[in-house]
Amino acid sequence: ADIVVLEGDGIGPEVTAAAVQVLQALAARYGHQFELQRHPIGGAAIDASGEPLPAATLQACQRSDAVLLGAVGGPKWSDPKAKVRPEQGLLALRKGLGLYANLRPVQPHAATLGASPIKPHLLAGVDMIVVRELTGGIYFGDKQRSASSASDLCEYSVAEIERVVRRACQLARGRRGHVVSVDKANVLETSRLWREVATRVAREEFPDVTLEHQLVDSMAMHLIAKPRAFDVIVTENMFGDILTDEASMLAGSLGLLPSASLGEGKVGLYEPIHGSAPDIAGRGIANPCGTILSAALLLRHSLGLDAEAACLEQAVAAVLDAGVLTADLAPAGEAATTAQFTAAVLAQLD
Amino acid sequence: ADIVVLEGDGIGPEVTAAAVQVLQALAARYGHQFELQRHPIGGAAIDASGEPLPAATLQACQRSDAVLLGAVGGPKWSDPKAKVRPEQGLLALRKGLGLYANLRPVQPHAATLGASPIKPHLLAGVDMIVVRELTGGIYFGDKQRSASSASDLCEYSVAEIERVVRRACQLARGRRGHVVSVDKANVLETSRLWREVATRVAREEFPDVTLEHQLVDSMAMHLIAKPRAFDVIVTENMFGDILTDEASMLAGSLGLLPSASLGEGKVGLYEPIHGSAPDIAGRGIANPCGTILSAALLLRHSLGLDAEAACLEQAVAAVLDAGVLTADLAPAGEAATTAQFTAAVLAQLD
Ligand SMILES: CC(C)[C@H](C(=O)O)[C@@H](O)C(=O)O
Ligand SMILES: CC(C)[C@H](C(=O)O)[C@@H](O)C(=O)O
Repeated sequence: ADIVVLEGDGIGPEVTAAAVQVLQALAARYGHQFELQRHPIGGAAIDASGEPLPAATLQACQRSDAVLLGAVGGPKWSDPKAKVRPEQGLLALRKGLGLYANLRPVQPHAATLGASPIKPHLLAGVDMIVVRELTGGIYFGDKQRSASSASDLCEYSVAEIERVVRRACQLARGRRGHVVSVDKANVLETSRLWREVATRVAREEFPDVTLEHQLVDSMAMHLIAKPRAFDVIVTENMFGDILTDEASMLAGSLGLLPSASLGEGKVGLYEPIHGSAPDIAGRGIANPCGTILSAALLLRHSLGLDAEAACLEQAVAAVLDAGVLTADLAPAGEAATTAQFTAAVLAQLD
Repeated sequence: ADIVVLEGDGIGPEVTAAAVQVLQALAARYGHQFELQRHPIGGAAIDASGEPLPAATLQACQRSDAVLLGAVGGPKWSDPKAKVRPEQGLLALRKGLGLYANLRPVQPHAATLGASPIKPHLLAGVDMIVVRELTGGIYFGDKQRSASSASDLCEYSVAEIERVVRRACQLARGRRGHVVSVDKANVLETSRLWREVATRVAREEFPDVTLEHQLVDSMAMHLIAKPRAFDVIVTENMFGDILTDEASMLAGSLGLLPSASLGEGKVGLYEPIHGSAPDIAGRGIANPCGTILSAALLLRHSLGLDAEAACLEQAVAAVLDAGVLTADLAPAGEAATTAQFTAAVLAQLD
């Protein structure tokens, strides 16, 4: 299998290095061949070539079986007046690969509940997956700027809503059969369309799945007040961005959560939901968990290696259970480094 | 003073009735004359006249000193294909009165921490105020709908950003001098403008105030992970909507939080941040706290009655401390009704 590795910026190189080590160990153990190629994206690509997504990077991704990404961005490229920004590379990659469904599972581990701001009794048994629409909405609509004002257009087509709702309903079938669709239908026209289409798709194509609607403001509340109530959550791009960062607090740290971005094609993009964390970059203390678990999703969704994926997820769970926790999760002075955490996962895979 | 009371829908009539009783008790105690006029808005107004904000209602509000509102909306008027919706009445009122700054204070009470999903040690000393831009952004931009797609335009002018940031910085001066401005500047053009304008206003006009920027996704996380870190938060309309519902969980219930919507004119609009809660409407169990505390904000911001406002806030705090809690906060079987809670506040005012 051909895997493109996009390290990106900040802690990106550190966390992808950890995940690559783990993938290589699994390849050896199960007798697979993973061909890894590295390409630049984001700020690193801007520095190298002036472009946040060089054509060669996109082509390599298109020809690959799967893409593993670290994170992009950082203060070096954050001047609000800059013409090119690292994030454009990531958005162009998602769009270029047609990855409209971003899956973000949230399953708190007992060992990391201490780090969550949420009371532990609310978290036992939480197991949800957010399906975030990833190639539409206000992220990709027309943007205008004049001396005295600015605008962003949020647009959704029926087809864009249908396909992501379908994906959410399919996922729900293999789970508890319950989908909550999140919108702001009392204010937005795109949300009213979203609600109508979601209702129709669920009724006509998934009579076995229960669909419920929530307004995004209520959802921001219910997500932390009664997290056990959720199975599959489907929502548009921007709401999904906000709600999944919030949901990471259920797990205890943004550093724990993986994601899979899927389209109709075979290539998937796998990345932790955290950012490039420039404040801790280069110090060897980043939590590689989100990226390692993203590699597990890569094995499952792009390579069809379910046993290997499960084995890796169990290894990570065992390491967390054993109390090997990075600085985002551990009490001061007791933190494992990125290398120590990775070594512990590798030891589990032996 | 002339006060317009807009009961609205669902629990709106119940919670405004409670706040009106309290206002009348304060008027008697301090020797003020409050002339109260009721007018229809929202679903009730649609039923009566076909319009969610009848011209007579808007005119009465424009001529008044202050407006006290319950909540609007409900399933009866929520058909996605309906031409007129209750929420349009509220949005038109905010816009019609020029109320661009929506102040939402969040100060958890010791007595209600049990109802919060957040660990109590994170909540001690939390005291923040969110300043939500209320008459711009995607709420008011052009909306389009065709058979195959829909769109909403998010627009901000420099002047719209300046005035709300100014209001936030002024507030910060009377507090801890710290403002966090929330945007999504790594993706949205409106957010890049927001960040530039906020930076300039703070630097040029408020050198004594510290301004920090946060991306909305990070903010959804930090708000619950380290709530004590925040003093004044300023953000655009939609982000403010989402973040304040989330922030209500710090207090323990959406039913606790008041808001004040202010513009350049003298009229202010005061409403709880909760909705019309159709599921519990008419049962006499709604929490009137958010509306009663909104009445306190009305006394302070529109009538300049600071002592009366403080007296009312202390009365509410004393009632909560005494363990008089409505069903949203109390263990099952121990809940006070709306009337009991209100009577307890009135008793404190004697
Ligand atoms: C870096 C940024 C553009 C990105 C997004 O908003 O999609 C990130 O926050 C994410 O959630 O993947
Ligand atoms: C009812 C709705 C239009 C309103 C809003 O989104 O502004 C409400 O959620 C609020 O926060 O006041």
